[in-house]
Amino acid sequence: MGWQKHYLDKLSRFFQIRNLLLRQALAECLGTLILVMFGCGSVAQLVLSGGSHGMFLTVNFAFGFAATLGILVCGQISGGHLNPAVTFALCLLGRERWRKFPMYFLFQTIGAFFGAAIIFGMYYDALWDHPGSFNVTGPDATAGIFATYPGTHLTLVNGFFDQIIGTAALIVCILAIVDPYNNPIPQGLEAFTVGFVVLVIGLSMGFNSGYAVNPARDLGPRLFTAIAGWGSEVFTASPGWFLVPVFAPFLGTLIGVMIYQLMVGFHMEGEVRDRKESTEQETVRLTNVTSKDNSREAVKERNEC
Amino acid sequence: MGWQKHYLDKLSRFFQIRNLLLRQALAECLGTLILVMFGCGSVAQLVLSGGSHGMFLTVNFAFGFAATLGILVCGQISGGHLNPAVTFALCLLGRERWRKFPMYFLFQTIGAFFGAAIIFGMYYDALWDHPGSFNVTGPDATAGIFATYPGTHLTLVNGFFDQIIGTAALIVCILAIVDPYNNPIPQGLEAFTVGFVVLVIGLSMGFNSGYAVNPARDLGPRLFTAIAGWGSEVFTASPGWFLVPVFAPFLGTLIGVMIYQLMVGFHMEGEVRDRKESTEQETVRLTNVTSKDNSREAVKERNEC
Amino acid sequence: MGWQKHYLDKLSRFFQIRNLLLRQALAECLGTLILVMFGCGSVAQLVLSGGSHGMFLTVNFAFGFAATLGILVCGQISGGHLNPAVTFALCLLGRERWRKFPMYFLFQTIGAFFGAAIIFGMYYDALWDHPGSFNVTGPDATAGIFATYPGTHLTLVNGFFDQIIGTAALIVCILAIVDPYNNPIPQGLEAFTVGFVVLVIGLSMGFNSGYAVNPARDLGPRLFTAIAGWGSEVFTASPGWFLVPVFAPFLGTLIGVMIYQLMVGFHMEGEVRDRKESTEQETVRLTNVTSKDNSREAVKERNEC
Amino acid sequence: MGWQKHYLDKLSRFFQIRNLLLRQALAECLGTLILVMFGCGSVAQLVLSGGSHGMFLTVNFAFGFAATLGILVCGQISGGHLNPAVTFALCLLGRERWRKFPMYFLFQTIGAFFGAAIIFGMYYDALWDHPGSFNVTGPDATAGIFATYPGTHLTLVNGFFDQIIGTAALIVCILAIVDPYNNPIPQGLEAFTVGFVVLVIGLSMGFNSGYAVNPARDLGPRLFTAIAGWGSEVFTASPGWFLVPVFAPFLGTLIGVMIYQLMVGFHMEGEVRDRKESTEQETVRLTNVTSKDNSREAVKERNEC
Repeated sequence: MGWQKHYLDKLSRFFQIRNLLLRQALAECLGTLILVMFGCGSVAQLVLSGGSHGMFLTVNFAFGFAATLGILVCGQISGGHLNPAVTFALCLLGRERWRKFPMYFLFQTIGAFFGAAIIFGMYYDALWDHPGSFNVTGPDATAGIFATYPGTHLTLVNGFFDQIIGTAALIVCILAIVDPYNNPIPQGLEAFTVGFVVLVIGLSMGFNSGYAVNPARDLGPRLFTAIAGWGSEVFTASPGWFLVPVFAPFLGTLIGVMIYQLMVGFHMEGEVRDRKESTEQETVRLTNVTSKDNSREAVKERNEC
Repeated sequence: MGWQKHYLDKLSRFFQIRNLLLRQALAECLGTLILVMFGCGSVAQLVLSGGSHGMFLTVNFAFGFAATLGILVCGQISGGHLNPAVTFALCLLGRERWRKFPMYFLFQTIGAFFGAAIIFGMYYDALWDHPGSFNVTGPDATAGIFATYPGTHLTLVNGFFDQIIGTAALIVCILAIVDPYNNPIPQGLEAFTVGFVVLVIGLSMGFNSGYAVNPARDLGPRLFTAIAGWGSEVFTASPGWFLVPVFAPFLGTLIGVMIYQLMVGFHMEGEVRDRKESTEQETVRLTNVTSKDNSREAVKERNEC
Repeated sequence: MGWQKHYLDKLSRFFQIRNLLLRQALAECLGTLILVMFGCGSVAQLVLSGGSHGMFLTVNFAFGFAATLGILVCGQISGGHLNPAVTFALCLLGRERWRKFPMYFLFQTIGAFFGAAIIFGMYYDALWDHPGSFNVTGPDATAGIFATYPGTHLTLVNGFFDQIIGTAALIVCILAIVDPYNNPIPQGLEAFTVGFVVLVIGLSMGFNSGYAVNPARDLGPRLFTAIAGWGSEVFTASPGWFLVPVFAPFLGTLIGVMIYQLMVGFHMEGEVRDRKESTEQETVRLTNVTSKDNSREAVKERNEC
Repeated sequence: MGWQKHYLDKLSRFFQIRNLLLRQALAECLGTLILVMFGCGSVAQLVLSGGSHGMFLTVNFAFGFAATLGILVCGQISGGHLNPAVTFALCLLGRERWRKFPMYFLFQTIGAFFGAAIIFGMYYDALWDHPGSFNVTGPDATAGIFATYPGTHLTLVNGFFDQIIGTAALIVCILAIVDPYNNPIPQGLEAFTVGFVVLVIGLSMGFNSGYAVNPARDLGPRLFTAIAGWGSEVFTASPGWFLVPVFAPFLGTLIGVMIYQLMVGFHMEGEVRDRKESTEQETVRLTNVTSKDNSREAVKERNEC
């Protein structure tokens, strides 16, 4: 297999991208593509099969585990945000640089766009076979496969509030999972835990408008449907709605970050900082208390008293 | 990002709470809020969608994984009890101080109260749209979204017994998971395992009255519904019932602790104690047999013979 | 809390059982009780709610995760077999002593008996409320909550074959999970993996007669129903059936052990033995190749070539 | 137990196969047998029970967790591919030798054949009891229990595309899981993660033709049904279809490998290579940067900047 190794090595060197930010953005793109492909695919399966091959629970599972898989594919490179709201939260807390935010947002949206496109191609025959092939409204509407639309009972204000709560809940849980001072799960299981968060949000907050809680996941597929045959109605069918899943999640992120920091985060951080400062005063030699393991131990020790 | 870091640090110092018990109680409050928000949210989704966006299984999943997420958010700080019965069990066994009990109970109930409030806000439109908007009884009742009510077949005595068994089962499993002498799962997976316990209890013990098995989870939301529009009927609709999920779980806890200790716990403990004493007699230097890893090895060694 | 610690210590010393086998049997008893309590509880919920609070999938989940929880509770002490067929398989392979087999079988059956009794008490009102309260046959039969009964399409021969295949599948998977020479999962996750095995068996082999694949799980509850009100019909309703889940699993175990050993086990073992022997010849100092970690590395190294 | 150990040792030596490739092929055979037995078993349970003991979701769960169990049984020996497309992908990337490919393909197909045979035996009575006992087409067809058949809405071209997308998605996720330079999950959890991938593919890509995405899983059972009583119609009922799940997955594999390598794989590899080369230039002593842990750290360090 000498020639194969040689050839693969050559290919690898030829296609290698050395710009870190571009590489990360590409990875986010693939991760979000996977999230949307599997997620919207399960909605397509539910809608197009008329319920024989799916139900709302399968959509919840698919979005949850799709988030897990998307994070697994790109997490080591880009952090696996898959969601501009998550990028926004980490920027707010100073854990990611702000210049990443527009780049990630763009590539996440592109990934979501192509994820929707793949599902469109996959279920092309089934779409044409379906009574409401390219309807945006009505009982046989198929636009809901790709982007979210509000339920008939929902006002715009309640819908906005719905997206804020959903995103805040998502962000509180994700912050707990990735907080360097409050690290409750074994390394390598973050992706699975985030998947559970997405699953639970779907199980309990999905009835109003389908829990987008992710600007890229909603905007990308909506743009795709506008182009692919559903037309501009995807923006106008429910006036103003298309802006809700784009803007509300950022407000929800702000609230989620505040709640988590006020109720848990600041105190953990402060605990570690206090310990560190007292250690510095006592002894001259700097024991590296800020390292994750030590800080956890430190917190535990005090909590046990 | 220098100014951002500086500003965040200032905020962190300003809001840091140094009282440990208050901090733990706050964390319990947030954890229980998450449990009830996701749990009751899934019941709301089931009831308000008339079954199209949920079923009893989704409620079971939601409560199970909500327990997992609640524990993950606050577990490192407060232990992640989320349930006064769990606090009670650990106090009984001398693993938590008794003064924690009233504080945790209060803040868990407050958290449950606000968790219910968030779901109320989120599904406000859907509630008004539902035929039985603020009914406590009848086929379209919505009070069951928040607190538990007994099935029509259930007498008060059987209901009391139901809550005792459910809580005893919960406590036996939780004690096995957190027993320092019988530690069967990798560190960091406790939260997931407790989630599975809650899930299984819902799958098999949920038909009688909806498996509260948690005084705070039932009392907090019930108080909220009394204020939010369902009125005092939430206490009187099924006479005396509202006291069952508040008192029966503590009796169940007592029974669960006894069963676990008599059938498993005392023998493991004794094993480790015997080993330790014999070691002390044999050699003067105290090998630290009580440390978790050693004790596990010790037990294993003897079991393997 | 000095007096509490003192009192607990005294209790612990008083109730401690020093006989290892009895202690293990007690633990098995509690583990099987948990398995049957949650498992049969989910069937009760399905049958008594008339499908509103359960479906066959929830029964599969409940039995799977109940197996996990049962193993977690007693695994460190007794190995967590919960099933005489598993004990039999480990005895066959020389990993447990034969004298454990009758003791475990007895206590597992006792545990299953009391697990069924708890569910009977819990759903006592619901049972009386159900149209076919204590029927063993007919559309409203409730005996199937506790023990298994064959479907109407099933002959005794096919039923025997069904139990053999189911148990063989269970044993092959369990052997792979606990094989010291083929240890594919992280320590501490065995219980979860066995739970998945039970879940999958239920998903794909549950239609014929309800996948007992466990003599104790079927016999214990059947004895309980005979006493509790269903009468001797539980043995005679389907002539001879009650013997099938008691005897077929042992034959299935034999077949499962043979298949696993012939296709995987013997070769892994031999690999390690060969390595060890060659190492012994080469060098005089005995490197402890048989230890688990080394053997795994050894096998991997050769497989990688 | 001396005589038993002696006898077992003798048996072990007698049956031990020393040829590595044959041993690996046997293990693949058992693994694929388990995958198909549990997977097709769940379809049988769904079809033969008329929906009372299964639904499409249970089939998804069964195939997912069956993949997990199959990998656990044989993964340490053969790598646990269970799918010629996976073997093909690893050969393409130079991680397995090409001579393994035909051998694995053959034994995987044999395993799938016997997995189907076991389910046929298990549900023999139920098959005869079913209205469309041995029908390949029509509403009561049972041939779909074993092999996949396209939905009525599906053209051959779209079906080919469906299998390509499904396999590409599978391969992208599997490559991310097993990529030595992008190792996002704890060792030992690969099997579970692959199970989730198969589950998600079923949840979102199962409506068109039942997501074979595995030549062996489809060809083996189809051959079995041709022999067992359904006749040659299994090849001709939907003209040309039987070739789609055999050939499309390999094309899908090629596309999946390209997408993963171009968007993630090459850059991770290059990163590690660049680091290694620069280290070599700087210092003479070769620090072993290629080892997995170091490379991960290295990548992380740079990503954090």
